[in-house]
Amino acid sequence: MDKRPIGIFDSGVGGLTVAKEVMNLLPNETIVYLGDTANLPYGEKSAEIIRHYSVDNTEFLLKHDIKMLVVACNTASSVALEHLKSLYTIPIVGVIEPAVKGAIFATRNKKIGVIGTNRTIKSNVYAEMLAKLEPEGEIHSRSCPLFVPLIEEFFVEHDATRLIAAEYLKEFKEQGADTLILGCTHYPLIKEIIAEILPGVKLVDSAFSTARDIHSLLDTHKMLALSPKDGKPKHRFFATDLTPKLNELAKYIIGSGIDFEEISVK
Amino acid sequence: MDKRPIGIFDSGVGGLTVAKEVMNLLPNETIVYLGDTANLPYGEKSAEIIRHYSVDNTEFLLKHDIKMLVVACNTASSVALEHLKSLYTIPIVGVIEPAVKGAIFATRNKKIGVIGTNRTIKSNVYAEMLAKLEPEGEIHSRSCPLFVPLIEEFFVEHDATRLIAAEYLKEFKEQGADTLILGCTHYPLIKEIIAEILPGVKLVDSAFSTARDIHSLLDTHKMLALSPKDGKPKHRFFATDLTPKLNELAKYIIGSGIDFEEISVK
Repeated sequence: MDKRPIGIFDSGVGGLTVAKEVMNLLPNETIVYLGDTANLPYGEKSAEIIRHYSVDNTEFLLKHDIKMLVVACNTASSVALEHLKSLYTIPIVGVIEPAVKGAIFATRNKKIGVIGTNRTIKSNVYAEMLAKLEPEGEIHSRSCPLFVPLIEEFFVEHDATRLIAAEYLKEFKEQGADTLILGCTHYPLIKEIIAEILPGVKLVDSAFSTARDIHSLLDTHKMLALSPKDGKPKHRFFATDLTPKLNELAKYIIGSGIDFEEISVK
Repeated sequence: MDKRPIGIFDSGVGGLTVAKEVMNLLPNETIVYLGDTANLPYGEKSAEIIRHYSVDNTEFLLKHDIKMLVVACNTASSVALEHLKSLYTIPIVGVIEPAVKGAIFATRNKKIGVIGTNRTIKSNVYAEMLAKLEPEGEIHSRSCPLFVPLIEEFFVEHDATRLIAAEYLKEFKEQGADTLILGCTHYPLIKEIIAEILPGVKLVDSAFSTARDIHSLLDTHKMLALSPKDGKPKHRFFATDLTPKLNELAKYIIGSGIDFEEISVK
């Protein structure tokens, strides 16, 4: 048993979809969350700079005595996970492998689609992971760079988002995928629009799959907090840049009030 | 006469609309351009961090022996221009004052609209500048945070952009503005869509107005390069993060090939 907190980072608020699933599945665990909002969005940046930000984020979370690290950002998981694992000894979980496992479990025809940011899709990490875990699987990928800004602007039920989504997603109809991986922790927030455009396709949400992986990893290592530290878990939420929209968005995702604390980026 | 280059910075490629007008109006001048793409977009970030980035950008350009600095980003002009002027002795030009002067010149009913990023609009700098230069003017402002990502994604002639623009701009019809300031150096690229939604409204482009201000400032200080340095001006373009889209977008804006060089952010 280990009552130290779980550290989670993302480029912004998208990783809160993972934090929420962890709270649901593991209510005794304490979370320390870092949104690197000063440097978002990661999705359109170079791999090198994302690795650099990821190390900074991890160093910050380690100061909060975390027992494990969750890279709750598909872009950072795509290009920085192995680098982080080579540098640190605590258990580290990304969002790619859990999502691919979820998709393999869900698919019947082994045709799987994946959507994500430019950087995630260009990294080819989903195709590589699928080839490793299910050699007979066929993957089709598409970057959807406008989804993150649309979601951050609360255009989650807007016709413009429908038009953009229809354009981004039409190629999956041709491919005949029966399963689509939402390869960005923001995307669960527009799940309904995606489901309208691709009826009958199973949508795999990396947030839920990742929470399950966190549970099994902590369980294996006998590191679960079987009872909360000091009564109720006191989660903390940090951001490298505190914008007015941040708490509003966080409330929308988590479903209750959150107070982000700002940390300096220097 | 002064053949040293003009330094221009922006958060990304938007400032190239200013660079292009400078090339047109002042063909003998050499430009050193810096797009701080590792930290874009500035528009949704805090004032403090934008000032910090602006100082870093200026320090880099000063190493290239610039004779003047152009802050070709409305967000940085809104929140960092006075800070930069207090730190450096070279002439510094922003994009706010030229645009407001252009709008005062264009308007007949003195009702002026302005659109920009969240940070620019919240800074209230356009309203303050107008109150100073034309006390009888009436200003109405609106932030349009999705325009920059849409433009960076080349959705410059797309129906989704039309829908989003129609929603953002409808309030200007009610206000009866006869002039609209495009308060972001990206916006000239969707000028046609904006003109469709607001027919008859004069659109004031800060890029052109700023180039005119640069000319008159250099002229006043006897700092114009009356002939180019070493024959034809050899412009240089730097970015803090070199993404594949960068040169493509730059070509779209400038109209000919550009090779961005990457600089380290550390």
